[in-house]
Amino acid sequence: MLIVQKFGGTSVGDLERIRNVALRVKKSVDAGNEIVVVVSAMSGETNKLVDYAHYYSKEPSQREVDLLLSSGERVTSALLSIALQAIGVDAVAMTGRQAGISTDSIHTKARISNIDPKPILEEVKKGRVVVVAGFQGVTQDGIVTTLGRGGSDLTAVAIAGAIKADLCEIFTDVDGVYTTDPRIEPSAKKLEKISYDEMLELASLGAKVLQNRSVEMAKKLNVRLVTRSSFNENEGTLIVNEEEIMEQPLVSGIALDKNQARVTLRGVVDRPGIAADIFGSLADANINVDMIIQNAGDHGRTNLGFTVPKTELITAQKAIQKFSKEMESVDFDEKISKVSIVGVGMKSHSGVASKAFKTLSKENINILMIGTSEIKISVVIDEKYSELAVRALHAAYELEK
Amino acid sequence: MLIVQKFGGTSVGDLERIRNVALRVKKSVDAGNEIVVVVSAMSGETNKLVDYAHYYSKEPSQREVDLLLSSGERVTSALLSIALQAIGVDAVAMTGRQAGISTDSIHTKARISNIDPKPILEEVKKGRVVVVAGFQGVTQDGIVTTLGRGGSDLTAVAIAGAIKADLCEIFTDVDGVYTTDPRIEPSAKKLEKISYDEMLELASLGAKVLQNRSVEMAKKLNVRLVTRSSFNENEGTLIVNEEEIMEQPLVSGIALDKNQARVTLRGVVDRPGIAADIFGSLADANINVDMIIQNAGDHGRTNLGFTVPKTELITAQKAIQKFSKEMESVDFDEKISKVSIVGVGMKSHSGVASKAFKTLSKENINILMIGTSEIKISVVIDEKYSELAVRALHAAYELEK
Repeated sequence: MLIVQKFGGTSVGDLERIRNVALRVKKSVDAGNEIVVVVSAMSGETNKLVDYAHYYSKEPSQREVDLLLSSGERVTSALLSIALQAIGVDAVAMTGRQAGISTDSIHTKARISNIDPKPILEEVKKGRVVVVAGFQGVTQDGIVTTLGRGGSDLTAVAIAGAIKADLCEIFTDVDGVYTTDPRIEPSAKKLEKISYDEMLELASLGAKVLQNRSVEMAKKLNVRLVTRSSFNENEGTLIVNEEEIMEQPLVSGIALDKNQARVTLRGVVDRPGIAADIFGSLADANINVDMIIQNAGDHGRTNLGFTVPKTELITAQKAIQKFSKEMESVDFDEKISKVSIVGVGMKSHSGVASKAFKTLSKENINILMIGTSEIKISVVIDEKYSELAVRALHAAYELEK
Repeated sequence: MLIVQKFGGTSVGDLERIRNVALRVKKSVDAGNEIVVVVSAMSGETNKLVDYAHYYSKEPSQREVDLLLSSGERVTSALLSIALQAIGVDAVAMTGRQAGISTDSIHTKARISNIDPKPILEEVKKGRVVVVAGFQGVTQDGIVTTLGRGGSDLTAVAIAGAIKADLCEIFTDVDGVYTTDPRIEPSAKKLEKISYDEMLELASLGAKVLQNRSVEMAKKLNVRLVTRSSFNENEGTLIVNEEEIMEQPLVSGIALDKNQARVTLRGVVDRPGIAADIFGSLADANINVDMIIQNAGDHGRTNLGFTVPKTELITAQKAIQKFSKEMESVDFDEKISKVSIVGVGMKSHSGVASKAFKTLSKENINILMIGTSEIKISVVIDEKYSELAVRALHAAYELEK
């Protein structure tokens, strides 16, 4: 098989860990696979460089920041390549540029525009392991860019798509994707397989295994993803097309998101376009509004509720202010959490939602908001019930089995 | 003026020093100059990366070592650029590649094959300070190379030549070139001007201000060089064409080299080609033979003396071994030193050599070997007289004046 393996900052955190990664790659090579490795900077290195830049300026030029940051992954790729050669594996290091990765020119969060598969495949054909510096590319003008958070995962997925790899393995410090956070519910089970869409819902809901950008790209390019631990030999979780999952469970997992806050606008004047105006103003302020609920109030007025990330609450407050004459009151509630039940099986089964409501009611947990999609039911509840709700729902859908 | 300024590892040794470099560059800009800066890696950084590579292998692949090492200068160039912007100087960082530096493909000691002046000049025209990562370039195939020891000086000189700069200032931790080592002779004077050829003799003889490669390139490209300290505002030493130096002193400086050893082959069979064979064998072993002296011995045999670097003495021993039947004995003497009197004025004046011999004789210092060039007289003496000889000669040629 042609496999792309990506090792994150913790996995290459020091020289000894890089050696372990080399041994792991060698195993895959010895098993008859062709391997392309994508590496992050050694953990702590990127933050150190960011601190360096901020020593001089609160807002250092992003072009220079990219040049600075890209050096971390270059160092790791050279070191891993040397470590592989030292144990008899023919290897060659490549920068983002050498690996044919072109991006747009939005520094510090560039988007990959194209990957030329030739440079990597030529080396693979020679029987070499190619070690690519993740997180970086170059613009049309040859200026170095970086891809922002999760950029090395993205590099790995994009390369896997470009070279038509059979698999893209993302190595992290966790074993894979669980039915819920094992620190909350110890009986949580690792999932063998999960669909892209489920993973997207789980990732955006706080399962920190993979960032959405990478999963979205994997889905788009139809890249078979595996997320697994670099510290043990456990199998990990395979993230694939829905169609590849024979037996689709009703519910795959329960996600908890404590980073949302609820905003309630009461007695909003019910004029046409008022909602569009308010949410337009929030969008202009770059605020990610998540759940939205509108229901009738008294005297031709309406109540409007929505959630925003806690970190964006103050910005949201400002964006709403100009509508203050068109509403009676505004409430902000940071002490909430969002619990979501995710599963592709929901599409074809009813009763999933009602079971959730019954379960929460039995525990005397009041539901403040409800939102649904084809494969997800989210409820907003009082933050103090977060863990209780997760455990109760995990048991109700028998996810420990 | 269009000036290239090069700052070495000590000058950019930490974040505060980089800030000082930025302030210094700003001064030059405020004085109305156009500035291109070339930087080394922060001191210690290159050694750290070399150690990393050697953690895995005694002989790490040089291509990977180059990728590894080149990251140090990239970090400095980005940081200095950010530091400049922070104090209101428009600046842009460039890697070796972006600065248009092409090299051959001899990793870890590549030679610059070409510099395209356009990328740098375009930015200079926009009123920007260009901060180039020194010590690196790329091959025709786009693979990163480094230039070996003194590589950042070389980058600076080559760029100065390519963009036709008016001046190339090399900032180090010393004030300039002295008539001799001030630690040996406190009355040693800093030279205002010195010719390329004199500098070449002084550099190869142990004055560690500039490496020969850089001076040779400066001479070839006719780049006016200044070497000065980054820690004070002193004027430094200008290194230029002989013709630019109006009043050429008889002697410019006294250099001391304690790193040579003397080899004496006694009673060598005087057959045709024997010298060619012996020195051919030494050359094949990559030994830098410096002074060579041959004089008649007894019974149709000859004595052959030469000096080699102390570090190459064992290799030299091996290279000579196969001729052991053709000579009576071989002597190795590590306790010698070479003292050289350098000055372009010698060309047109006689009596320089005889004054040296008289001076040393007066101090009862025995001369073991003598070698001369157009602008240099070197003598090999017992190591214990090194400092005495330097002081006596310094006084004899009145260099303190």
